[in-house]
Amino acid sequence: MSAKPRISKGTRDFLPGDVQKREYIFGVMRSIFRKYGYQAIETPSIELTSTLMGKYGDEGDRLIFRILNSGEKVTKADIEALKNNRLAQFVNSISEKALRYDLTVPFARFVAQHQNDLSFPFKRYQIQSVWRSDRPQHGRYQEFTQCDIDVVGSDSLLYEVECIQIFDEVLTSLKLPGFAIKINNRKILSGIAQKSGADDHLITIVTAIDKLDKIGEQGVISELKQKNVPISAINILQPLLTFSGSNAEKMKRMWDFLEGSEIGMSGMNELQQVLDHISELGLYRGRLEFDMTLARGLNYYTGAIFEVTVDDVKMGSICGGGRYDDLTAQFGLKDVSGIGISFGADRIYDVLNELDLFPNTTESSISYLLLNFGGEDMISSLELAQKIRQKGIDCELYPSKAKIQKQFKYADARKARFVIMIGEEERDSESITLKNMETGIQENINRQAFLDKL
Amino acid sequence: MSAKPRISKGTRDFLPGDVQKREYIFGVMRSIFRKYGYQAIETPSIELTSTLMGKYGDEGDRLIFRILNSGEKVTKADIEALKNNRLAQFVNSISEKALRYDLTVPFARFVAQHQNDLSFPFKRYQIQSVWRSDRPQHGRYQEFTQCDIDVVGSDSLLYEVECIQIFDEVLTSLKLPGFAIKINNRKILSGIAQKSGADDHLITIVTAIDKLDKIGEQGVISELKQKNVPISAINILQPLLTFSGSNAEKMKRMWDFLEGSEIGMSGMNELQQVLDHISELGLYRGRLEFDMTLARGLNYYTGAIFEVTVDDVKMGSICGGGRYDDLTAQFGLKDVSGIGISFGADRIYDVLNELDLFPNTTESSISYLLLNFGGEDMISSLELAQKIRQKGIDCELYPSKAKIQKQFKYADARKARFVIMIGEEERDSESITLKNMETGIQENINRQAFLDKL
Repeated sequence: MSAKPRISKGTRDFLPGDVQKREYIFGVMRSIFRKYGYQAIETPSIELTSTLMGKYGDEGDRLIFRILNSGEKVTKADIEALKNNRLAQFVNSISEKALRYDLTVPFARFVAQHQNDLSFPFKRYQIQSVWRSDRPQHGRYQEFTQCDIDVVGSDSLLYEVECIQIFDEVLTSLKLPGFAIKINNRKILSGIAQKSGADDHLITIVTAIDKLDKIGEQGVISELKQKNVPISAINILQPLLTFSGSNAEKMKRMWDFLEGSEIGMSGMNELQQVLDHISELGLYRGRLEFDMTLARGLNYYTGAIFEVTVDDVKMGSICGGGRYDDLTAQFGLKDVSGIGISFGADRIYDVLNELDLFPNTTESSISYLLLNFGGEDMISSLELAQKIRQKGIDCELYPSKAKIQKQFKYADARKARFVIMIGEEERDSESITLKNMETGIQENINRQAFLDKL
Repeated sequence: MSAKPRISKGTRDFLPGDVQKREYIFGVMRSIFRKYGYQAIETPSIELTSTLMGKYGDEGDRLIFRILNSGEKVTKADIEALKNNRLAQFVNSISEKALRYDLTVPFARFVAQHQNDLSFPFKRYQIQSVWRSDRPQHGRYQEFTQCDIDVVGSDSLLYEVECIQIFDEVLTSLKLPGFAIKINNRKILSGIAQKSGADDHLITIVTAIDKLDKIGEQGVISELKQKNVPISAINILQPLLTFSGSNAEKMKRMWDFLEGSEIGMSGMNELQQVLDHISELGLYRGRLEFDMTLARGLNYYTGAIFEVTVDDVKMGSICGGGRYDDLTAQFGLKDVSGIGISFGADRIYDVLNELDLFPNTTESSISYLLLNFGGEDMISSLELAQKIRQKGIDCELYPSKAKIQKQFKYADARKARFVIMIGEEERDSESITLKNMETGIQENINRQAFLDKL
């Protein structure tokens, strides 16, 4: 029965110190989300396959973890489909459920399902795990935590402004020294395609531009050529890939470029309003940067799109998001606009570790460790432990009468701030010996006086 | 693309009010667990099948959710096994991973895997979801939350005492009026089997006695007969099923009954020490009750076993646990004794709802809602909202210049405590109109004075 303990690839255990650091990040987020009026909801980890499939593109669909039907139901396996290499059909014959791939699609399902119990605009936050059968690699896990806020039921641009404020406030509160909040608008991308005369290649263009960071200008051009985007269109697009300057300069050039494209102008107008509001309000440490090459891969965005990158850290974006207008329609609830952003908790964790930004208080430690001298002494200690806890303070009694060195070694390992000893002498005099583990100073004090001071 | 939104059977969405109530329960537990020196860990939802299978008995194995291998790997499906109805073999050919079934086995895997990074005795708490493919029914879900504490690396009975104290403190803090903490010891059950002359039927006896609550005395007797436990043994066992009286009375009868059984005496000695310590320390609202028919189905318990039931509520046990001596050995770490208890968060939630014990503060509401009158007024409101949040207070700006009735309706739905209005007049006079939504009283106050008072 004995086997070497192993964990499934791409998953992680979190030790006490890890959990405390993660809780620090989630705690900062929660308090800020709540300040902006967002309320927590939770959806199940398991969704019907039909809820998830077809929402994330072909690549996304492939990365969804499927759950096998239980018991006798697997006998319905479609062997013919398997033999003929129709794998999707085979999988569907033995699986009706899947693990949550992100928080947005289940949220859209939630809103459609509970629409009569919600008041709109509905603002929610959600901090839960998601699963993707990506090939595990450094910083990429098969199970990870997403921290999302979304608002549905309003197309007000004030929520674009709010999302930017929340990016800024969360990351500033986490003490990141500097970061760029990149913004673009899908309508601007549509306008670009239109003005290039490649309207019907919009998805190809968006997908290629999305990879600019990774494959560079020439890579994007090659991909566009390969996917049969007309050379004339590519020639018009190419200069946009290397656009630089201030937001105002970039805006000016795009106003000119997009002139005559109704959808492009609409995107520019939205963007301008958001930029204006943010200049009025100011940001803490974030810089809002218009980036017309920002595309975001996900199919469902229709308006503003965001991505956040941290200065001086080699890592992709740590946050993203955007506006989507059609998401709940897939679940029968039409004409509901929404906007949402997502914080990548794992990447943020890595950044805070790399920049040494976690507060010291996330160290796991215990206030009082009571040594155990057995017998009646032990009972006195047990009773004192109860009284310390009644004051709301954490403490632990060593479980057995072990050698004192061993007990002190445990106190060190547990980072105990104080050690309490009750031996025969202390028991008779109703006192305790209290050792400050930082200073090493040890003193005998009256037990009741000690409790009164807590 | 439109489909009626549905959720997978046996799973649940949690709306904001639900999440707040659940967080209240978890918050009480966390603070008490920490006071006793327990530290949080987390393990992945996905474990290797080999980690989980064979640890929960045949029935448990059947209820484990299996995850389908991704992509091309399903082509390795063992069709022959399927045709010959060797379902387990077929399933193993297409699935290497499974969803966590409880928190104890993954914890044992965790301890064995990280033994060099932990200090023993290692005390941890863990509040995470588990999944079981049980037939969904009232109060039984396929995905639910377990709240566990465990200590490994010590066989000290002080931890049995501590577990009882923690049951008592958590449930008292949650304001349950009365509850019984039932205790037994697997060694006493072994002694009973031995003294009945049915040593080799121990598992059968434990399994049957475990169902006493559900099937009654006659049901247990029938099951024992059916499973070929000798009539002579059943005759000796039967009187134990209806034992009643105080702990002292029951202990006295069991000391007599078990005389001569070494293992039985060992269990009685352990139990006596625990009962004695608890009488010395006292409990808040819990009653500790020796119940020699308490068996607990899980295979891995070896010493004390616990179950908690709430007075005046028709529901099975809401907590359980016990000592296990061999669990980490399954992962190669031998001679490590452990003890753990689990709180059933979902049942506790239902009990608190039924007895109306949730505090009012779990109602979701917002402190300030700012109405939106558009244009410059809106910008003044946006700026004020930012200043309110800078004071750490939650507020929301209505997203668009809707009719005032509609905005007030939203304020009601969001349970806003105050509504703030900034129209032209207030903008000119740098004031706000503040409406207390509880009293209905409305007043005009200076904006800076309002902020200073926050």
